[in-house]
Amino acid sequence: MLVFGTPRTAVFAHLDSIGFTVRYGRQLVRIGGPQVESGYRLVGHDAQGDVACTLAVDDETGELSYEFTRDIERGTELTFACDFRETADTVQSCYLDNRLGVWNALRLAETLEHGILVFSCWEEHGGGSVAYLAKHIYETYGVRQALISDITWVTEGVHAGQGVAISLRDSLIPRRSYVERIRQIAKAAGIPHQLEVEGGGGSDAKELQHSTQPWDWCFVGAPEDHVHSPDELVDKRDIASMLALYQVLMREL
Amino acid sequence: MLVFGTPRTAVFAHLDSIGFTVRYGRQLVRIGGPQVESGYRLVGHDAQGDVACTLAVDDETGELSYEFTRDIERGTELTFACDFRETADTVQSCYLDNRLGVWNALRLAETLEHGILVFSCWEEHGGGSVAYLAKHIYETYGVRQALISDITWVTEGVHAGQGVAISLRDSLIPRRSYVERIRQIAKAAGIPHQLEVEGGGGSDAKELQHSTQPWDWCFVGAPEDHVHSPDELVDKRDIASMLALYQVLMREL
Amino acid sequence: MLVFGTPRTAVFAHLDSIGFTVRYGRQLVRIGGPQVESGYRLVGHDAQGDVACTLAVDDETGELSYEFTRDIERGTELTFACDFRETADTVQSCYLDNRLGVWNALRLAETLEHGILVFSCWEEHGGGSVAYLAKHIYETYGVRQALISDITWVTEGVHAGQGVAISLRDSLIPRRSYVERIRQIAKAAGIPHQLEVEGGGGSDAKELQHSTQPWDWCFVGAPEDHVHSPDELVDKRDIASMLALYQVLMREL
Repeated sequence: MLVFGTPRTAVFAHLDSIGFTVRYGRQLVRIGGPQVESGYRLVGHDAQGDVACTLAVDDETGELSYEFTRDIERGTELTFACDFRETADTVQSCYLDNRLGVWNALRLAETLEHGILVFSCWEEHGGGSVAYLAKHIYETYGVRQALISDITWVTEGVHAGQGVAISLRDSLIPRRSYVERIRQIAKAAGIPHQLEVEGGGGSDAKELQHSTQPWDWCFVGAPEDHVHSPDELVDKRDIASMLALYQVLMREL
Repeated sequence: MLVFGTPRTAVFAHLDSIGFTVRYGRQLVRIGGPQVESGYRLVGHDAQGDVACTLAVDDETGELSYEFTRDIERGTELTFACDFRETADTVQSCYLDNRLGVWNALRLAETLEHGILVFSCWEEHGGGSVAYLAKHIYETYGVRQALISDITWVTEGVHAGQGVAISLRDSLIPRRSYVERIRQIAKAAGIPHQLEVEGGGGSDAKELQHSTQPWDWCFVGAPEDHVHSPDELVDKRDIASMLALYQVLMREL
Repeated sequence: MLVFGTPRTAVFAHLDSIGFTVRYGRQLVRIGGPQVESGYRLVGHDAQGDVACTLAVDDETGELSYEFTRDIERGTELTFACDFRETADTVQSCYLDNRLGVWNALRLAETLEHGILVFSCWEEHGGGSVAYLAKHIYETYGVRQALISDITWVTEGVHAGQGVAISLRDSLIPRRSYVERIRQIAKAAGIPHQLEVEGGGGSDAKELQHSTQPWDWCFVGAPEDHVHSPDELVDKRDIASMLALYQVLMREL
C-alpha cells in the first residue's frame, strides 16, 4: 500500500494470478478460473527443482492433469508459461489481467500527488485481502472512494482500441452518482472511453461493496481478448487511455 | 436511519427494487431476480427523455430485450410500470416487496418510542449497505436485535389472509432463542400470525448474520402472491397484523 | 471462548451439526449438507415431546420427508440418531464432524499454556459466529494465527490411519508461508501427517479469509469416511496424531 499526499481516492490493483494446484497423482485443481486447453505450457517449482510441464484436459470428463517427466509434489502451484508478444499496436501474454492493472498503478505513481495505491491478493480466488485493507484505509485516512485498476473483456459492446472501459455494473451494481461523476470527468477530459454493462463477473470491488465501510467504487480498465488464457491480448491505445483517465480521475475525484 | 428514544431493536426495510439494466443493442440484464414475461411494461429515463417500453423474452434462449421506438442508452435502469390495484381485501402492484415493508416502518414511526428504523439498499442484488449500517448501529447504540420488515411468499404452508409470517428460517437460520421470544410475544398479544420454514431465499438478514457484530435477527413480514412480478398481491389483513405485531415487538423485545 | 496465558494462536472448533428442519406437512429441508438415505433414524423434540422418526427420500424427485406416528411441529430441528461404535482401531458415529474437533480442543485445554480455544456455530450452514469472534480476538489479544480443528475427508490422496491431514487448500487458499511453517513443525516433531489438496469444501476459515483482520489460517484435522452420514468413521491413530500435532503447534507457532 502506497500513500501519497492527502488521499481522497484509493486505486486497487490485484497482484495474484490464476493457475492450478497439483493434487494427487497427476491431478490438477484450478486457482481462480483459468481457460483450459490440452497443450498449454505450465511452469512452477517444487523441492526437486523447476517444473515446465503440459496441461492435459480429459475430453470426456473435463478433468485436468499434467504431463511431465516426473511426479510434481502435492500442493505445487503451476501458472501459464509466459510468452510475451508485442506489436506496434498490441501486447499479448498470459496475466495481462492483472499485470496491466499493476503497471497502470505503478505508472500512476510517477506523477501522483494525492491518493492511495493498493496491491491486493486473492482477487482471482474468492478474495481475502481487500476487506482488511479497506478497513485500514477508511479508519486511517477517511478515504472511501475507490477505482478498480483491472482488465475487463472485449465483448459485442466493448471493442479493442476504442478506449478504456468504465463499467456501469458487473455482477454487482455500484452507486450511480459516483459512476456518473467518473463519466463526467472522462467526458470533460476528452479521453477515449467505452461504457460497459455486464450481468456477471466481479473484481476487488466485491469486497468493497460488502465491506463495513460505505465505499464508492468503479471498475475502470482496458478490455482484453482471450481472457484468462496464455494469449490475453490488449490494444495499446486502451492502455494509454486507461493511464490517462486514472491521472485525471486522481486529480479531480 | 431514524433513531427514537433509547433503542433496543432495529427494523430494516429495504428501499431498492428489482428490474433491468440496458446492455448493448437491445439486450437487458437483470437487477435482482425479476419474473420475466414478454409484454411486461417497463419504465425508465435516459438523457433523451422518458422511456416506456416492453419486455421481450426469447422463447428459445431466455434472453431478455426490450421493444421501443428508439434505442435506450447503455446502462439505463428499467423497472416495472406501476399498475396499482386496490380492493376491499387486497392491494396489488409491482414492488409491494418492499414498499409494504417501508410503509410498515413509516407507520411504525407514528407511535414508536424506542427503536431504530433503517432504510437499506441493494437487498435485491447481493447487499451492500446493511454491513456498514449494522456496524454503525452496534457501535453507536449498542443495539443488536433486528427485525426484517420485508415481504415473503404465499406457499403451501403460508396462506394469504392468515396473518403476518414469522420466519423460522430461510437460506439462513437465525438464533432460536430470539425467534422463540418473538413467537411468545406474538402469541401473548393474540395477533394473527403464521410460521414460515423455507430452505431458500434471503433478506437484509444475510448481512447481519455475516456481520462482525453478534446480531440477532428475525424476518417478520406479510406474504405475497405473484412474487417479483408486476402483479404482487397482498391481503390487507396480513398488512394489518404485520404492523400490529411490529408495534408490540418494538415495545416488548 | 477460552483464553490461556499470552495467546499467539486461536483454535476454532465448530459445535453445530448438520440435520433437517420440519417444514410443512411432512416435508423436511436441510441444515447444512447431510447425506440422505431412506431409513436413516432422526431424533428431535417439539412441544408434544420427544421425536424418533425415519427419513424418507423420494426416488423420483429427491424430496425429503419423515415417517412418524404423529405430525411434528413446524420448525422442529431433527438430527441423526446417535449409534456410537468403537473398535480397537476406530470410532464410528454421526457427527464425528465436529465432535472430534471439539474433543481435540478440550483435550488440548488440559495442557495448553498459551492460546485461545474458540467454539463456533453455524459452520455447517453458511457461517455466522466466526466473523465477530475473530474481530473480538484480534482487537483484544492481537492474535491473528488460526488453526481449524475440524474433520476432513478420506480420499484417493488422504487415507485412514496415515495421520492427521494438513490441508494445503480447499475451496479457499491460505497464505503459503503460514502453511509452510506448520508443515515444518510437523516434520521436525516427527508426527505422522498427510498433505491434503482439495478444490472444494470449506470450514470456519471462510469467515477468517473474508474477515476485516489479516488472519492466517490452516485446516488441520483427521480424515473421516462416510462423511455427513450417521456412519462417520475415523481411525484412532489419526485422532492421536491430530492432538499431538496441535500440542506441538500451540507451543511453537
